[in-house]
Amino acid sequence: MPDSPEAPRFLKACRREATDVTPIWLMRQAGRYMADYRELRSRVSFLELCKTPDLATEVTVTAAERLGVDAAILFADILLILEPIGLDLEFAKGEGPVIHNPITESSDVDRLRPMTSAEPLGYVMQAVSQIRAALPPSIPLIGFAGAPFTLACYAIEGGGSRHYDRAKAFMYRDPGAWDVLMRQLTDATALYLRAQAEAGAQVLQLFDSWVGNLSPFDYKRFVQPHMRRLFDALPADVPTIHFGTGTATLLEAQRDAGGSVIGLDWRVELDEAWNRLGPEVAIQGNLDPVVLLAPIDEIRRQARRILDQAAGRPGHIFNLGHGILPSTPVDHVRALVEIVHEGR
Amino acid sequence: MPDSPEAPRFLKACRREATDVTPIWLMRQAGRYMADYRELRSRVSFLELCKTPDLATEVTVTAAERLGVDAAILFADILLILEPIGLDLEFAKGEGPVIHNPITESSDVDRLRPMTSAEPLGYVMQAVSQIRAALPPSIPLIGFAGAPFTLACYAIEGGGSRHYDRAKAFMYRDPGAWDVLMRQLTDATALYLRAQAEAGAQVLQLFDSWVGNLSPFDYKRFVQPHMRRLFDALPADVPTIHFGTGTATLLEAQRDAGGSVIGLDWRVELDEAWNRLGPEVAIQGNLDPVVLLAPIDEIRRQARRILDQAAGRPGHIFNLGHGILPSTPVDHVRALVEIVHEGR
Repeated sequence: MPDSPEAPRFLKACRREATDVTPIWLMRQAGRYMADYRELRSRVSFLELCKTPDLATEVTVTAAERLGVDAAILFADILLILEPIGLDLEFAKGEGPVIHNPITESSDVDRLRPMTSAEPLGYVMQAVSQIRAALPPSIPLIGFAGAPFTLACYAIEGGGSRHYDRAKAFMYRDPGAWDVLMRQLTDATALYLRAQAEAGAQVLQLFDSWVGNLSPFDYKRFVQPHMRRLFDALPADVPTIHFGTGTATLLEAQRDAGGSVIGLDWRVELDEAWNRLGPEVAIQGNLDPVVLLAPIDEIRRQARRILDQAAGRPGHIFNLGHGILPSTPVDHVRALVEIVHEGR
Repeated sequence: MPDSPEAPRFLKACRREATDVTPIWLMRQAGRYMADYRELRSRVSFLELCKTPDLATEVTVTAAERLGVDAAILFADILLILEPIGLDLEFAKGEGPVIHNPITESSDVDRLRPMTSAEPLGYVMQAVSQIRAALPPSIPLIGFAGAPFTLACYAIEGGGSRHYDRAKAFMYRDPGAWDVLMRQLTDATALYLRAQAEAGAQVLQLFDSWVGNLSPFDYKRFVQPHMRRLFDALPADVPTIHFGTGTATLLEAQRDAGGSVIGLDWRVELDEAWNRLGPEVAIQGNLDPVVLLAPIDEIRRQARRILDQAAGRPGHIFNLGHGILPSTPVDHVRALVEIVHEGR
């Protein structure tokens, strides 16, 4: 069903309809680089912020309005879903996420609790609903979840990792237990995203942030079937964004698994990637987040280059290739939004 | 000048000549995964080991003999070259390399000392010469250096980094100072590698380990011209290996910069990469190091798949896509060497 001419440009681009200017939003647009956010975080912990719908609403809406972007994204964390399935999650100060009871043996998969309802994550759906009510109709709300591979990496590594060697070794050692784990994470994620859509999320993004550490051969064997099942389980009328980093060699396999929009990081040329993927998908990306630390002239040069590469093809959503870095000047982010809205 | 029929298979493969079986060596084949190495390191620091030719010789030769590989690689570190140019390097226990006086301002580039002779790194050339004398003639010796971009990252970040944001921001902010820095690192590296070749290194590998964090656009502007100049400054009769990780989208640009052999990591399919690069280069790679943590059957499946992809093309050197991980069982490494020597 095509949108009316007044549909927000972000939604139109997700559906590959022509837009007046290129829509833009930015991963981690609400975050540490903003003074308001740092001030709030000096008073409440990260998990507390995620679990308090009033506060999640405040940071989501403030960021979108302050920047003048074309979409808001729910303030939450991809790891929240690990709690109801039985993993003990903590955000240790300055150390990132820690899981105190990681999956180390195949038998640990059996102790995970299948998620039968999204109710334990009700605080997220409450936030989605409040954010949707607080945003102007012109600003669509993006819901999101971590993709199963990335969640499995955290669950097995017990936190961040450099080589993902424990997760990958688990996968190689016991493909059966890996399959059970991935199915369970896939089911939970589908349930969670459907609940977000019912609560008011208009677009859903899957963050497969670490999948770029896999060879194409392993991606196809150990991840792609689960991603396909996940996308098939999402509401057909809600656009989806399939995002990862370091995925230059996985893009076709990701597209085949699903997603109305494929997210690119900066390591791949946008035009070449889109040529490879064909016109049946929209494209999100793909400025290097570090470019936002550069002088405005360099930001303009690189942003215009990306706009040039997308020119003439409906369905480009401007974004970074990964989240905004904490050291990014807010003024540079606002300048980028203006540059993209000015066009080429 | 073609080798005699008795030339070691590793050298023949570097020159894209047919070999009886596929030659193999492994990045970090002398390292923490070996009990002998850990025992030695319990007595001497990493820098002390690098700077003591007798010890560097012992670990280099022991590893090559123990594994039955087709080449030995000098035991050293890519960051040693930073000391004579004026950076204060330390390998802090469990933390990796730390540079106590990193380059933070453009003006810091001026305080670097141009390297006019490789003499301050004489201990490396002494090790090369001793290793060459200790190895059987059938085992060629590889010398190596870090590529200027990767060295610049360490020099600016002051150590390892997740996003290389300081290094990349420096590059964007002051392209002139960046150019001076890269020229200086290029000159020093060329001098150092020429000295290694004179001391007995028969093949030279450039490790541009972090270059895969750049977009292709930035690689071509900020790195490629320096790499081209560097390869042009190396002895024409010594084969060179041009290696990086995460370089799936940079391969053609790397090939154009130089290298008899292009190193691939596991994120790219070997046959597709070689088709893109054409038959005028040899290929090194490309098993995921984490596969060595898998059961032997999985190691065999993945190794044979790579051999299949290279079949019928002279010039394949089997290797991992990056260094052996410390948790790797030695038996698995030896099994891989046997599997590769058995062939498909």
